[in-house]
Amino acid sequence: MSETDLVVERLFDAPRHLVWKAYTTPEHLRNWWAPKPYETPECEMDLRPGGKFYTRMTGPDGFDLRGTGCFLELVEGEKIVWTSALGEGWRPNDLGPADCGGFPFTAIVTLEETVDGKTRYKVVAMHRNETDRETHEAMGFHSGWGTCADQLGALAAELGQ
Amino acid sequence: MSETDLVVERLFDAPRHLVWKAYTTPEHLRNWWAPKPYETPECEMDLRPGGKFYTRMTGPDGFDLRGTGCFLELVEGEKIVWTSALGEGWRPNDLGPADCGGFPFTAIVTLEETVDGKTRYKVVAMHRNETDRETHEAMGFHSGWGTCADQLGALAAELGQ
Repeated sequence: MSETDLVVERLFDAPRHLVWKAYTTPEHLRNWWAPKPYETPECEMDLRPGGKFYTRMTGPDGFDLRGTGCFLELVEGEKIVWTSALGEGWRPNDLGPADCGGFPFTAIVTLEETVDGKTRYKVVAMHRNETDRETHEAMGFHSGWGTCADQLGALAAELGQ
Repeated sequence: MSETDLVVERLFDAPRHLVWKAYTTPEHLRNWWAPKPYETPECEMDLRPGGKFYTRMTGPDGFDLRGTGCFLELVEGEKIVWTSALGEGWRPNDLGPADCGGFPFTAIVTLEETVDGKTRYKVVAMHRNETDRETHEAMGFHSGWGTCADQLGALAAELGQ
């Protein structure tokens, strides 16, 4: 971790393969990706390096954000790397101020199995510089991504019932 | 190809594995990467997705440009994808105007073997938008990348002698 990173960590009461399933299946992702009452009515995932990762989030306040990122690395059950800097087929994204602050970031998600069958979830958001990290933090990163992580953990636990 | 791409294509009188070798070996890359009399005194390559691709180019006119990109995909002997949008470990690059125009691009290099043992070399540079493509073109893309491609082909042919 460097001074340009932001990190969220959680311990989920669910096995790793169900956290993976909840993250990589569009119909499941739509249930945890946005902090409720925000919603994710649309999601498309092409799970391979260079593959499209599209989401649309909406909110009761009129919030409506479409974004297309790109998967960079996928290790089944263990690791997901994606970035907002690139879109489908690794083409650089033309980010404007309306695109969630306009700065690019790369997310590195790791899932680690604990001895008692739980999952240590960690996501590191890497930025270009400290200014972007501060902007992202001031936008409510920890509360927002933290809430979504909790939602992801709860959904993964539900999938096991 | 789209309207935001720039393309250079060449037919090299060298087998594909030698073009691959000339591209992916720092001591060989240093001999073709910059259009002569420009030089590439420094190069570091970590040939894996997320791996660092660092070069330094210098010129007799005082030109001195360091840049760190990132490999995205490597298919031995066939395909190299790298981007200036990201650096080592996929961290977004903090590109300024001094960084070769300041715009990010992704390069997709493909090597195709012909029936007579030659190599069809193609590099597609993908940009965020038409403005960046036009800027890159006005910076002398076709002449610059074309000259480097010719140098790469000549070096690959030499390696076979």
